[in-house]
Amino acid sequence: MPKRLWSVIERSFHPDKQLHHETIFTIGNGYLGTRGTFEEGFAQDSPSTLVHGIYDHAPGMLVPELVNAPNWLPIRITVDGTPFRIITKTSDFMRPPEGHVLGFERVLELDRGVLTRDVLFRAASGNIVRLIFERFASLHNQHILAQRVRIIAVEGSPVIELESALDGSVTNAGVAHWAQDMHVLTDGDVIALGARTQQSAYTLGIASQLICAHPMPVPETDDRLKPAMRTVVQIQPQTEAVFDKLTTIFTSRDVAAPLETALSALEAAAHSGYDRLYADHAAEWKKYWDSSDVVIEGDDECQLAVRFTLYHILITAPRHDENASIGAKTLSGLGYKGHVFWDTELFALPPLTLTQPRLARNLLMYRYNRIEGARHKAQANGYEGAMFPWESTDTGEETTPQWSDVQPDGSRIRIWTGDTEQHISTDIAYGVWQYWRWTGDDDFFVQHGAEMILDTAVFWGSRVEHINGRYELSQQIGPDEYHENIDNSVFTNRMVVWHMQIALRTLDWLKVHAPADHDRLVAQLNLTPERLAKWADIIDRMYIPFDQEKQIHIQFPGFFEMEYIPVPDYTPRTSSVQAILGHARSIQTQVIKQADVVMMMALLGDAVGSHEVMVNNWNTYYPRTDHGSSLSPAMHAWVGARLGLMEEAYDMFHHAAHIDLHDNKGNVRDGMHAAACGGVYQALLFGFCGLQLGDDGPKIVEPRLPEHWKQVSFGVYYRGKRHTFVVKNPV
Amino acid sequence: MPKRLWSVIERSFHPDKQLHHETIFTIGNGYLGTRGTFEEGFAQDSPSTLVHGIYDHAPGMLVPELVNAPNWLPIRITVDGTPFRIITKTSDFMRPPEGHVLGFERVLELDRGVLTRDVLFRAASGNIVRLIFERFASLHNQHILAQRVRIIAVEGSPVIELESALDGSVTNAGVAHWAQDMHVLTDGDVIALGARTQQSAYTLGIASQLICAHPMPVPETDDRLKPAMRTVVQIQPQTEAVFDKLTTIFTSRDVAAPLETALSALEAAAHSGYDRLYADHAAEWKKYWDSSDVVIEGDDECQLAVRFTLYHILITAPRHDENASIGAKTLSGLGYKGHVFWDTELFALPPLTLTQPRLARNLLMYRYNRIEGARHKAQANGYEGAMFPWESTDTGEETTPQWSDVQPDGSRIRIWTGDTEQHISTDIAYGVWQYWRWTGDDDFFVQHGAEMILDTAVFWGSRVEHINGRYELSQQIGPDEYHENIDNSVFTNRMVVWHMQIALRTLDWLKVHAPADHDRLVAQLNLTPERLAKWADIIDRMYIPFDQEKQIHIQFPGFFEMEYIPVPDYTPRTSSVQAILGHARSIQTQVIKQADVVMMMALLGDAVGSHEVMVNNWNTYYPRTDHGSSLSPAMHAWVGARLGLMEEAYDMFHHAAHIDLHDNKGNVRDGMHAAACGGVYQALLFGFCGLQLGDDGPKIVEPRLPEHWKQVSFGVYYRGKRHTFVVKNPV
Repeated sequence: MPKRLWSVIERSFHPDKQLHHETIFTIGNGYLGTRGTFEEGFAQDSPSTLVHGIYDHAPGMLVPELVNAPNWLPIRITVDGTPFRIITKTSDFMRPPEGHVLGFERVLELDRGVLTRDVLFRAASGNIVRLIFERFASLHNQHILAQRVRIIAVEGSPVIELESALDGSVTNAGVAHWAQDMHVLTDGDVIALGARTQQSAYTLGIASQLICAHPMPVPETDDRLKPAMRTVVQIQPQTEAVFDKLTTIFTSRDVAAPLETALSALEAAAHSGYDRLYADHAAEWKKYWDSSDVVIEGDDECQLAVRFTLYHILITAPRHDENASIGAKTLSGLGYKGHVFWDTELFALPPLTLTQPRLARNLLMYRYNRIEGARHKAQANGYEGAMFPWESTDTGEETTPQWSDVQPDGSRIRIWTGDTEQHISTDIAYGVWQYWRWTGDDDFFVQHGAEMILDTAVFWGSRVEHINGRYELSQQIGPDEYHENIDNSVFTNRMVVWHMQIALRTLDWLKVHAPADHDRLVAQLNLTPERLAKWADIIDRMYIPFDQEKQIHIQFPGFFEMEYIPVPDYTPRTSSVQAILGHARSIQTQVIKQADVVMMMALLGDAVGSHEVMVNNWNTYYPRTDHGSSLSPAMHAWVGARLGLMEEAYDMFHHAAHIDLHDNKGNVRDGMHAAACGGVYQALLFGFCGLQLGDDGPKIVEPRLPEHWKQVSFGVYYRGKRHTFVVKNPV
Repeated sequence: MPKRLWSVIERSFHPDKQLHHETIFTIGNGYLGTRGTFEEGFAQDSPSTLVHGIYDHAPGMLVPELVNAPNWLPIRITVDGTPFRIITKTSDFMRPPEGHVLGFERVLELDRGVLTRDVLFRAASGNIVRLIFERFASLHNQHILAQRVRIIAVEGSPVIELESALDGSVTNAGVAHWAQDMHVLTDGDVIALGARTQQSAYTLGIASQLICAHPMPVPETDDRLKPAMRTVVQIQPQTEAVFDKLTTIFTSRDVAAPLETALSALEAAAHSGYDRLYADHAAEWKKYWDSSDVVIEGDDECQLAVRFTLYHILITAPRHDENASIGAKTLSGLGYKGHVFWDTELFALPPLTLTQPRLARNLLMYRYNRIEGARHKAQANGYEGAMFPWESTDTGEETTPQWSDVQPDGSRIRIWTGDTEQHISTDIAYGVWQYWRWTGDDDFFVQHGAEMILDTAVFWGSRVEHINGRYELSQQIGPDEYHENIDNSVFTNRMVVWHMQIALRTLDWLKVHAPADHDRLVAQLNLTPERLAKWADIIDRMYIPFDQEKQIHIQFPGFFEMEYIPVPDYTPRTSSVQAILGHARSIQTQVIKQADVVMMMALLGDAVGSHEVMVNNWNTYYPRTDHGSSLSPAMHAWVGARLGLMEEAYDMFHHAAHIDLHDNKGNVRDGMHAAACGGVYQALLFGFCGLQLGDDGPKIVEPRLPEHWKQVSFGVYYRGKRHTFVVKNPV
């Protein structure tokens, strides 16, 4: 029986859940992610391996996207001539000779980052084999991918033919990114591919070797894009044959000669052998969990779900790379094209800041290394400073498309987020600030972080509109994306105030602790006294929409003049209220896509207002919120727990924790929801456990656990030192 | 959010699991069971209501079966003319006007025996309604069935047309049992049906009323077998309409005039009203759980599964009836035709003996009241005393078919269990003995129980074969039904020894405590001194196949001469090894269907032999066992725990506890596995918790909980007094 509370298990195969399961069974190591596609393929499967930073803009496409790398998984097996396949009643695409799947189990072992599959299969000959597949992307050496297939002769003495291949004929859902002139190489028991993206001209080398105690594999070179090796062995009754496939992968982002490097690395990997590679890999995973695990006692279901969400953050966080970040769908699917949104800094980053600060730093350096792109965007829009793109790729330029793909009715929809969802710059500053507060990484702050905070502050200083003696921000999109281009989003306005405050605090701190860097930045960013005076003025006179009578924040002026829709009445629902009402109508209503005022309360806590105001805000906005975004439930769980609304908080937490496991949104086929994963961690620690960072370090303030939880244990790093906490529920 | 650890939840509808879910969502009250079929129906659904004791032998069928009663569920709703249906992509059997299901959730609330369904539905008109269905079979008054439908106008002001019906056109998978001359009655807002089984001539009356604050329902009489009422109402926006449907049901097993009684009971029920009926029902459920619940701390998944299995035992156990018993598939499906097997006394009975002794007594009285049938069987087979039937119905005569239905190849298979699976008589004696030991119900024992033990002992006294100075039993089927008509099944032979022992102890006890009854039974059953001397001789000289060298019991002589199959190699498997190997071959191998020697160890414990022998037996038989029967895993969990094999024990327990919830056997569509449900309880208490009954009452001996469990709490009755236990895992 697989390890309890560490294993995601699929028992018996459901073809209709195939794409969902491909996503949740993704493995990865911070360098790449590979979906849980079968080695032998399956009808309508969607194999993908996404390598951080390898973007390409294909002809005719609106924007660049993360490129689906050559598939390293293929292992095709025949048993007495019968092709091994997961055959189901609804997928009888195979014709003679037909086999029969007698049993199936798949397990993702979260504790050691290994995906296994166990299948009992009867060939047309009547012989029965048990096939045990295992795969991992080495966390110890991120360029190594390992597979093992054990084939046990359960009945008879079957003849096994096994073909191991690399498949370069891959696309992104039909869009080709690799130039067709791939370099194919077969040499003894090694096969390799060298490839090049068409527009961005990244090169990639991938090499693979099949290791077995049986006749030396023979290369197959009949396919230009799919080098393969083949071997044949007869298995004696009740004995097993073991096949190890090792693969190495490099790109021109890593080394000058990816193919050659892949080949030499493969030799070294083969010398180590599968067992050693596995041991090194598992040891690294142990370290990850030693830092990042959260133990919930009293709720097995949420315990497993929390580990599952952390696993997906850990496998996608760039490990040795300051020029890649976490896309909205991680590396587990093609959704959102591998683009990086605010999901990273406000959702996925915090668990890393607290438990894997080195990885958090990588994510922030990705932004810092692209600050020129942000300056370009500000300049192009007529502003000063740095204005980070809503969607970011390798270049750091804005890559949000302005128009959607063609809709069924032939029209295109204007996409405004790249123009007016400007809070992203403050979200990044927020991520920097929290990282610095928790880690005390002054070196980063002085060299990189402060500059990001300050230059985005410069942007806001130039962006605000001075009207009637106050500052306003027109034409914004807040977190609630159902309402586009509204004026004075309270979330954005209030976050800008916060931004001005920490910008000034940054300068104060630099003046004392790093005067030379203070002066350097003042000069470089041209932080004139007038500019700083304006920042202070913005703090004082920014318009924060507020209803004095009702003592609530107003999401934006005019919000309450729209049609009221009692969102909770639309229960239960699989689709969003927006989808039910239709786009045209829902934007004219008070239906909110996701935490907006509530998000502000999560990020700023008590600074937002009195407890009374917070409760009023909750009571106002919670029943209007559609949770049409996966980002919403965790933020509600966090704030609900802080306000002592434990039933709602647990309901939202449970929902957030299972968005991907249960496919609560019905779209997990396109990839994991990175933000939901990171949000779950924050709801748990900042919400339920009441973790706060005081001047003396982390502390627990008014913890409120769901009634049935016994306790929550976790550790976080503060200034390089690990602090562990056990939060108990009063009995 | 539904109550944690008390709710079985289906979120979003899976048509391919429909029949599985119909079974697990069965409600019942010990009088009848009704599958979780939708009120409005669904393509290929299998509605059934099974009322205890109503059997009928249809023309051309091999044996009688429990009859599918008229369906009381039908409520058909249209919204602005759109028929409400759960429509899915794969079941678009509905044509215009079409609606759209926007959300679906179904919850079985185990704590109060209520099934709810919550659906958000958009009519073709665009109006949206939320429909909340609720149903229960009253535990307070077993003749009352209650449904409530709340329809909330979420969008618009829809016109609702609601039809409530009774459906007498039901069959058992095509086999008609009800005479077609049903008596249909409509009177004001009441509809009713009087029906009669064709062969057995039971009569049944069912009456139903639709209660709503809207225009008086109008009867529809256009269908001879489906009386219906119809009402129409327009719902104002954001308000709800509530429809209560109350139904009463009686049969000629209960009263002389079922239809008339149903009508008068309906009047009384309507006078009480839904809310009051619900409160009474819930109060009774509270009492059930106060006695029967087992609380597992540290394993939420198994906690819910254990409650689920107990729920299904509780809803099927006859509550006010000494002439019905629990069929192998409970009242939740047509599988095994509602026949009663050994599953009842050895599996389903013990949780009732310990927590609901009155219900346990009912089950044993069912057997006692059919002892004449057992005497007929003994006589017909040339034996003395009472030989209980392998399959039992209302008559108490043997109802095991001798031949199977026609197979795909045109042949029929001879079914031997009715002839030679004779251990059933001892299994019943075992159930009687345990009931008496736990309850101290001397009145039952003296009046009924002792007679069952003694007259079945008389049977065995006449059945054993005296060969070569020892007693043997040829041509038996033990629990391992893969091996039919073997000689000297160690299980059966050893259990017969136990049976002789307790028969003699019964007489000794009667002589002291109830001398008149002792003399009555000695005379009535003709328990001559010669007979009793033979019983003692059987105890001394019964052949118990045992390998002295290996120190193991031999399942039956010749067993180890057959082909050895390494069963664990056939992993993972959905089907049984028997199905994989084929019947013809598997019977020639050492593959064991289910716990056999291991079952003996469970039932007799230390009396079987030394710890060493027990471990040897386990090591021998566990790897040969297919678990082709749902009865197997729980018995292995029980014995594994007693032997300290905790990993295997937990693995088997987890499997047993989820056989029905996860459809581990793929056949739950035909009904719940009553034996597995009862076995789970025994594995938990007798296995893990080490509950034993000593001379001074119940005690905990060497508890061994799975490592991750914190503690198990439960209460059991001993001699009318409740004893509670908390078994903790050492930290």
